[in-house]
Amino acid sequence: MNLGFIGLGRMGSGMARNLLRAGHRVTVYNRSPEKAQALSGDGAQQAGSPAEAARDAEAVFTMLSDDHALSEVAFAQNGIASALKPGAAHISSSTISTALSRRLAEQHAANKQVYVSAPVFGRPEAAEAKKLIVIPAGDRDAIERYRPLFDAIGRATFVVGTEPSQANLVKLCGNFMIASMLEAFAETFATMEKAGIKRSLFLDVISELFGSPVYKNYGTVVAEQKFEPAGFALKLGFKDVRLAIEAAQELNVPLPLGSLIRDHLISAMAHGQEEWDWSSLALVASRNAGIATGT
Amino acid sequence: MNLGFIGLGRMGSGMARNLLRAGHRVTVYNRSPEKAQALSGDGAQQAGSPAEAARDAEAVFTMLSDDHALSEVAFAQNGIASALKPGAAHISSSTISTALSRRLAEQHAANKQVYVSAPVFGRPEAAEAKKLIVIPAGDRDAIERYRPLFDAIGRATFVVGTEPSQANLVKLCGNFMIASMLEAFAETFATMEKAGIKRSLFLDVISELFGSPVYKNYGTVVAEQKFEPAGFALKLGFKDVRLAIEAAQELNVPLPLGSLIRDHLISAMAHGQEEWDWSSLALVASRNAGIATGT
Amino acid sequence: MNLGFIGLGRMGSGMARNLLRAGHRVTVYNRSPEKAQALSGDGAQQAGSPAEAARDAEAVFTMLSDDHALSEVAFAQNGIASALKPGAAHISSSTISTALSRRLAEQHAANKQVYVSAPVFGRPEAAEAKKLIVIPAGDRDAIERYRPLFDAIGRATFVVGTEPSQANLVKLCGNFMIASMLEAFAETFATMEKAGIKRSLFLDVISELFGSPVYKNYGTVVAEQKFEPAGFALKLGFKDVRLAIEAAQELNVPLPLGSLIRDHLISAMAHGQEEWDWSSLALVASRNAGIATGT
Amino acid sequence: MNLGFIGLGRMGSGMARNLLRAGHRVTVYNRSPEKAQALSGDGAQQAGSPAEAARDAEAVFTMLSDDHALSEVAFAQNGIASALKPGAAHISSSTISTALSRRLAEQHAANKQVYVSAPVFGRPEAAEAKKLIVIPAGDRDAIERYRPLFDAIGRATFVVGTEPSQANLVKLCGNFMIASMLEAFAETFATMEKAGIKRSLFLDVISELFGSPVYKNYGTVVAEQKFEPAGFALKLGFKDVRLAIEAAQELNVPLPLGSLIRDHLISAMAHGQEEWDWSSLALVASRNAGIATGT
Repeated sequence: MNLGFIGLGRMGSGMARNLLRAGHRVTVYNRSPEKAQALSGDGAQQAGSPAEAARDAEAVFTMLSDDHALSEVAFAQNGIASALKPGAAHISSSTISTALSRRLAEQHAANKQVYVSAPVFGRPEAAEAKKLIVIPAGDRDAIERYRPLFDAIGRATFVVGTEPSQANLVKLCGNFMIASMLEAFAETFATMEKAGIKRSLFLDVISELFGSPVYKNYGTVVAEQKFEPAGFALKLGFKDVRLAIEAAQELNVPLPLGSLIRDHLISAMAHGQEEWDWSSLALVASRNAGIATGT
Repeated sequence: MNLGFIGLGRMGSGMARNLLRAGHRVTVYNRSPEKAQALSGDGAQQAGSPAEAARDAEAVFTMLSDDHALSEVAFAQNGIASALKPGAAHISSSTISTALSRRLAEQHAANKQVYVSAPVFGRPEAAEAKKLIVIPAGDRDAIERYRPLFDAIGRATFVVGTEPSQANLVKLCGNFMIASMLEAFAETFATMEKAGIKRSLFLDVISELFGSPVYKNYGTVVAEQKFEPAGFALKLGFKDVRLAIEAAQELNVPLPLGSLIRDHLISAMAHGQEEWDWSSLALVASRNAGIATGT
Repeated sequence: MNLGFIGLGRMGSGMARNLLRAGHRVTVYNRSPEKAQALSGDGAQQAGSPAEAARDAEAVFTMLSDDHALSEVAFAQNGIASALKPGAAHISSSTISTALSRRLAEQHAANKQVYVSAPVFGRPEAAEAKKLIVIPAGDRDAIERYRPLFDAIGRATFVVGTEPSQANLVKLCGNFMIASMLEAFAETFATMEKAGIKRSLFLDVISELFGSPVYKNYGTVVAEQKFEPAGFALKLGFKDVRLAIEAAQELNVPLPLGSLIRDHLISAMAHGQEEWDWSSLALVASRNAGIATGT
Repeated sequence: MNLGFIGLGRMGSGMARNLLRAGHRVTVYNRSPEKAQALSGDGAQQAGSPAEAARDAEAVFTMLSDDHALSEVAFAQNGIASALKPGAAHISSSTISTALSRRLAEQHAANKQVYVSAPVFGRPEAAEAKKLIVIPAGDRDAIERYRPLFDAIGRATFVVGTEPSQANLVKLCGNFMIASMLEAFAETFATMEKAGIKRSLFLDVISELFGSPVYKNYGTVVAEQKFEPAGFALKLGFKDVRLAIEAAQELNVPLPLGSLIRDHLISAMAHGQEEWDWSSLALVASRNAGIATGT
């Protein structure tokens, strides 16, 4: 297919490369052009604007950092909405609010364009290795039409529903579940520390108990307290937990555990941890237990 | 070895059977004798009291439901402490408070007896199938001496430390981590429900994301809301979370997530769920979101 | 002085009447004109738009329900900002976000207009009886110039600072303190109920202990569970707690008690209590304790 | 009347003195005898043991620091229970658990002695100045018989009910309400600090809003951060909040606000604040907001 791809951060670059590897023709755009140029060697065409990346595409992916960035790319002059052909699709993989997702669905529908929400789970290495989990939602036919694209970037695809914002909600709640695990690690590791029990021992037990690579990987980061460089910046984790809370609020669902994590992430930011890995949330529990943390 | 085994509930029966299978001679005692008789076919001797089960043993296991039951078995007339030979060991696998564990260590030491704390992770089926995780703590030599026993009942053994109560703390914190997962499921499933997203779809995504049998198993129970019969009764889960909080408090470690779960478990008990599976904690989040739950 | 007054709900009507009583000339505007007409008997002039109320005024008050309503009145066509004379003041008494307050300060400054934030504490009866607490913030000279107006509507004036949004923050935090009292009442009354202790007895003790009319008044509402008609609608209380949390978040201050109240207010809304008095927050604690509440 | 009084700390001394002033004959006992001697000048007789203070009394008051101290005085050899005449009363004013109160009621009943729970609200100065609030519970006739004693020590008496432990629950919940106010102050003052708003200004507004001496007094301590010497030690405040939570738990009532405060008090203790005034709870919110607190 003729595709566009906008947003070539660490996630987007891997995804775009896998689309190229699958034989699609991909026109890429990134605000800072070096990242787009880096994909030339893989066969990507370069566009000078989001509109240009979208113009001839059957589908244009977006993979951007937040609501603000995606709004710009979608709705600004030279944005996607102004250029995408009727019947062509905007496939949004960014982690955004359900509110923006609903707005995108409306606007694209008004333009006779298709809007599919297709967030992904996985770190940059997983994006590169074609091991993402893809969770599309939107028009059923459109999803079937574009399923080969999802297969090209991920190891598994789960269709969430027919309402695009539902996929965003699942993504936000998935990240909230990871954050919950981090808070549980934070509190238990602080307890271990003050009880004189080795962090590595506790990690071994918990890894064996849950048998989950997510527990093992994050647990190792927390046990070793290596929060830089960040795999996923704490300020982005905060954004996601905040969006999960706001989405749940719209549905009149309280998320008390979400609120607890949110408050702890704010405390982490008050201690200058915005750019550290979000697992550094663990330092909040340590500080509250009177354990010196160096921040 | 010549062993005693006291407490033949669903966990204890499986453990005792595996000790018999490994070729040890096991004298068993249970308050209601039918359960002890059931093990006769497997070759167990029956004792008329805890003391009798302990008298000739190199090591006597206890696997009881709470502090109260273990205190009785250990310290009452005809209890273990009165009968165990000097140098022989009380191996306690019950999930008890760190305070009782410290008291047991002191008393047995005063009697020249050995006390090893050896809690286990795993459901009754795992106990039967020799797939428990065993986490002993206590005197290093004693643990090495009895390691073949741990190997006989579990799939993996992690030595926590030299202080028996440390093992109890790791066990309590492990259960607290599972409870944290349950709370996270509770809040996200309530959100899914009100957003019109299928519970089974969300479970599939989260199972794929974490790749953990614990998430899959508990997530299935919550998704299907089959809380009876209980795999692990909510009132016992409450006991464990409460004990984790109390143990952390002794160390001046706040557990805000623990407190949140504790309050939700109390609410569950206020709605009559003491005997349901502890994953029915999820109903609290549902009720708070205004979802009718039938209780 | 020549004044404008926009927003004649139960609070605004009392305030406007007291400005008239103090001898000022007041031109009033309300979206639904009946409320403006009701003030004619008190000597008020009527305007056909916010701009008309502002045009000849030395100062125009606004007393509206939320950010959205005030933004419209301030910035829409025929809004205040388009009509107010250079040097004249917009005095905003609404309970709004600190973010909107900062935006108003900027825009009015760009128009050479003065912006003073002057939120008030007190129920409609206090507004009528000239018993409000007024907490202005903004340019020091402007506040002194308009001080007679604050004296005309309230029993006490406290100048918060020179930054208008600071007054909004104090107002939001004051309401958060009242909400905290409500949550404490909620949990203790639920406890009393299940302990078989009379609600009126507990209220008497607490009233004597705190010696505060706020405790007495709200405590009586909670004890008697008369949540309709609302003195202050729960959905508005939710708005204020949410705004307090957001304002604190901008400063990297976690408000865990605020988060707890927010979640309970969401649960109340999930049970249909939006329009009830915000003290009906107490029903959430009752429900969580398994007390039947009829909702 | 012939009275005994056991426990002459800062509260007990004032209470005993007011009983003497009202013309009663009072035999006093304190573990460290200097405090008992200090009351000789006021006409008190001195006893060598709790039993001696109770032997000839129509009623013996106890005012001790916690469950442990009161259990000793009541049940140890030479304790009250061994000496009090049939029909005479033990009037317990200590802040103790509802569980101990129930146990005292049972034991005294078994001895044909009367047990009245009569906790008090008020600081040491209020005890000295006869301004306590007294909240007795127990047998109705007994309370009427001893009412002149309550009048002699307090400014107001509220009869809670016929079950002694109900009075202890009201006392614990009253202290929990004060702690809730402290937490609300803690979070709002931290917000003010980071917003550059004067602490004294916020205090003035809140004092005017609530019109409560309790808000004014505690608010002043928090605003000025003068946490030593303690009016009420944080570790005792922690004890009371913990007991409130445990009493509520017995009734299956969750106290999420209580849990939040409890966790913050634990964090305060982890930072060495056990002996500071319990209003130093406010430092926890400050630290979580990244405000340097010197601890």
